[in-house]
Amino acid sequence: MTLQTLPFSTLIAVDRRSTTPIFRQVANSLIELIKSGKIKPGYQLPASRDMASMLKLNRTTVVAAYEELQAQGWFEVIERRGNFVARQLPVMNPKSFGVSSSDKFLSQQQEIFYRQVAARQPVTRQLKPYQLMINDGYPDARIAPLDLIIDRYKFLSKRTNIHSKLLADGSHGSNSLRTELALFLSKTRALNITPEQVLVTHGAQLAISVAASMILRPGSTVIVGDVNYVLADRLFEQLGAQLIKVKVDQDGIDVDAIARICKQSKPSLLYIIPHHHHPTTVTLSAERRVKLLDIIRRYRLPVIEDDYDYDFHYENAPILPLASAEHDGYVLYVGSISKTLAPTIRLGYLIGGENFIWQAAKLKQVLDIRGDVLFEESVAHLFDMGEMQRHLRRSVKLYKKRRDDFCEILRASIGTVANFNHPNGGMAVWTLFDPEYSISHLSERLAHRGIYMNDGSLHKYRIDVNGIRFGFASLNSNEMETFGQALKESI
Amino acid sequence: MTLQTLPFSTLIAVDRRSTTPIFRQVANSLIELIKSGKIKPGYQLPASRDMASMLKLNRTTVVAAYEELQAQGWFEVIERRGNFVARQLPVMNPKSFGVSSSDKFLSQQQEIFYRQVAARQPVTRQLKPYQLMINDGYPDARIAPLDLIIDRYKFLSKRTNIHSKLLADGSHGSNSLRTELALFLSKTRALNITPEQVLVTHGAQLAISVAASMILRPGSTVIVGDVNYVLADRLFEQLGAQLIKVKVDQDGIDVDAIARICKQSKPSLLYIIPHHHHPTTVTLSAERRVKLLDIIRRYRLPVIEDDYDYDFHYENAPILPLASAEHDGYVLYVGSISKTLAPTIRLGYLIGGENFIWQAAKLKQVLDIRGDVLFEESVAHLFDMGEMQRHLRRSVKLYKKRRDDFCEILRASIGTVANFNHPNGGMAVWTLFDPEYSISHLSERLAHRGIYMNDGSLHKYRIDVNGIRFGFASLNSNEMETFGQALKESI
Repeated sequence: MTLQTLPFSTLIAVDRRSTTPIFRQVANSLIELIKSGKIKPGYQLPASRDMASMLKLNRTTVVAAYEELQAQGWFEVIERRGNFVARQLPVMNPKSFGVSSSDKFLSQQQEIFYRQVAARQPVTRQLKPYQLMINDGYPDARIAPLDLIIDRYKFLSKRTNIHSKLLADGSHGSNSLRTELALFLSKTRALNITPEQVLVTHGAQLAISVAASMILRPGSTVIVGDVNYVLADRLFEQLGAQLIKVKVDQDGIDVDAIARICKQSKPSLLYIIPHHHHPTTVTLSAERRVKLLDIIRRYRLPVIEDDYDYDFHYENAPILPLASAEHDGYVLYVGSISKTLAPTIRLGYLIGGENFIWQAAKLKQVLDIRGDVLFEESVAHLFDMGEMQRHLRRSVKLYKKRRDDFCEILRASIGTVANFNHPNGGMAVWTLFDPEYSISHLSERLAHRGIYMNDGSLHKYRIDVNGIRFGFASLNSNEMETFGQALKESI
Repeated sequence: MTLQTLPFSTLIAVDRRSTTPIFRQVANSLIELIKSGKIKPGYQLPASRDMASMLKLNRTTVVAAYEELQAQGWFEVIERRGNFVARQLPVMNPKSFGVSSSDKFLSQQQEIFYRQVAARQPVTRQLKPYQLMINDGYPDARIAPLDLIIDRYKFLSKRTNIHSKLLADGSHGSNSLRTELALFLSKTRALNITPEQVLVTHGAQLAISVAASMILRPGSTVIVGDVNYVLADRLFEQLGAQLIKVKVDQDGIDVDAIARICKQSKPSLLYIIPHHHHPTTVTLSAERRVKLLDIIRRYRLPVIEDDYDYDFHYENAPILPLASAEHDGYVLYVGSISKTLAPTIRLGYLIGGENFIWQAAKLKQVLDIRGDVLFEESVAHLFDMGEMQRHLRRSVKLYKKRRDDFCEILRASIGTVANFNHPNGGMAVWTLFDPEYSISHLSERLAHRGIYMNDGSLHKYRIDVNGIRFGFASLNSNEMETFGQALKESI
């Protein structure tokens, strides 16, 4: 093959107005020629001087292009002979993520250990233009002081060296937020902790992930409620633990059953939601609480106390957390700021002994490095100014009214096919439908009216649970009316 | 014990100007009396009418206080007799997180399986007022278009129902950002992917966590570089996997060694950083890249390709990722947006086959629910407006100059005791000191001058590695001068 066979001046188009440097245009054209097979492995390129003359370019431009191609592995240089198209090309067929190949990857479960976290196959994910979405218990972001956080964030982001200074706070989270949380939790929950006992996380779920990863190993056992917060169950299973399910009734989890289990063989962990248990919204009774603390101390039972909803109690003051009582350091306490502000904002925390938290921060670093420390600082400012506390007071007042209104609407619309209790706190009403009633059909009928509602499958893992959590906190009165009317007509 | 023995009007102080409701003040005072032992379990309280008269309060206020105390478990009601202090009190001594108890918790390693992620004991964490901090390779947040993101965030947060709409995007991440990333990655890296193949995560580390958790189980084996990005090694160990270390030289990881290992017994995973390998900054050569792709296909070897630094290449265009070549779907691709904008901002992504990503999103939900979808939308807008691309071009130009300047300064200041290569990309210079030189002493001397520098212990896990990564990208010329001068005088 001789040089003359290829009309490089035609094959290589150079656009002098393009923002792409000319040497790169030349290189890219040559790559295209190689990929299309027009010039083949082993082909000797014209010397840079000749190529420059053919293309009417400066020689240094061609040299730069050739160097680029060498560096990328398309050319190999043979000393005293020149540039050749490499015999082993850097393969770059960009079709490698096709559907068939990804299916192939997934089907090799015998080779790649792969925990199936969901049984269903992917379905077409249409984004329906719902006019109303019923969640399973989120706050109303519209009343949250997001502007204050955003303005503070903007203000802080302009400070000299704020970014590198904040990095020093490391994976524990912003020191200001840890300090504010220690104060806030001591005041509201009698936790009496120092900032060193606070780990800030990207949401309460990550706090549970970190805590559980510290304690569980494959084969560990975890006591959970039956029913329980589904994503906690799945997390423990993902970590290789076995669930021991203990009945939950109107007074919370059955602590006598926990005592019996501990007597036989101590479990690795107890996971408990004492306030507004998920999904049922029941609260652990004072009597059981005392008994449980006794069990924890006697059997040295590590506990994750998930208290995501503590601040939202509408009748009497909430019972203090287990973590505020004498537990010999066995209770790890998890809370959420997302539940206070908005579900899109992700902030949570884990409370424990100082050494435990220090180690947990190391583990968090391995799983997730750190949070957006600047954002954490901005939320700390909200606490510092008392705005978070004011927001909480406003929210509790509003949500209490919304709960009452919503329960009225529920009773009027679905009272004939479903039962529910007026929850004494939280953001959702746990509703059990008659066993033969199809929630998923109801959900479909509502979807036709532009209303999204969970189909109940989330809690269906126990066959006799035909229930759904109706989140009321994020619905204003118009939205409640709309939903109530739609329910009435779709039931 | 008779009622007259207790002077409730003295013991119970009511402050009418307080924001705490009076009934709660009464309740709290009674709890204090119980806790201090002044009134004991079994003690009968005065009837609400009598108590009201003693305290000169409305009777309904006292009734509310009593109901509060019943609800909290301090009182029990005996029908037709009245209120008694409960015999089993809700214990609430708030000292349960004392240092001794937390130590106790930690020392029970025989009972609670607990993976030690750090060997050191907590040290006093002083926040020194460093005037300058040298990181190990972060971008300069001061030049990032954070204002644009923040303004967009504020704008979006005011949209009606934006929060509940965004929740529909779920744990995959914001659909807008997935779409923008698919476009951006296809253009810059020839990945040719759809939005369904993108999982947005809270940082690249979480992307690696999710991917590794999908593939690894205790006893799995992972090929990693020797040396390697320390937090990846720790993550794989945390998941129970065993590391197989393969030498890294000037051309990247030794792929022949990988082939030999696969021939003997296929590992569960290969973790590789082809561009600007961490910590050494070397890039996998084109020849090894071709060989490695062949190995991946032949042995069906699952790969996590960590390409956190791809966009920052200063000489020739970067070699395309493994994920852009024909790999039969075995390569999972991880990238970072934190590295593009600012370390405080946490955003990363995982790319894979559509089904794999769908399952990975389910797993991400279990570990971390979702991201701040509103923030993700705001970053998507940055891509959509071309601002991210403009920012990248500006950054690359600036960082290239900073690299050159910084290498000059390094040579002049520590050239006699340390060696380094001019990196062809990334944000750090990997510097190996003479074996007998103490980096930690240097770090101490710099600290006295108000300059923070890592002490090298991060990479010290291999005894013969006496090195440190100097992050240059975040230093402006003044800061470089200051640091260079301090280095010269402290060496």
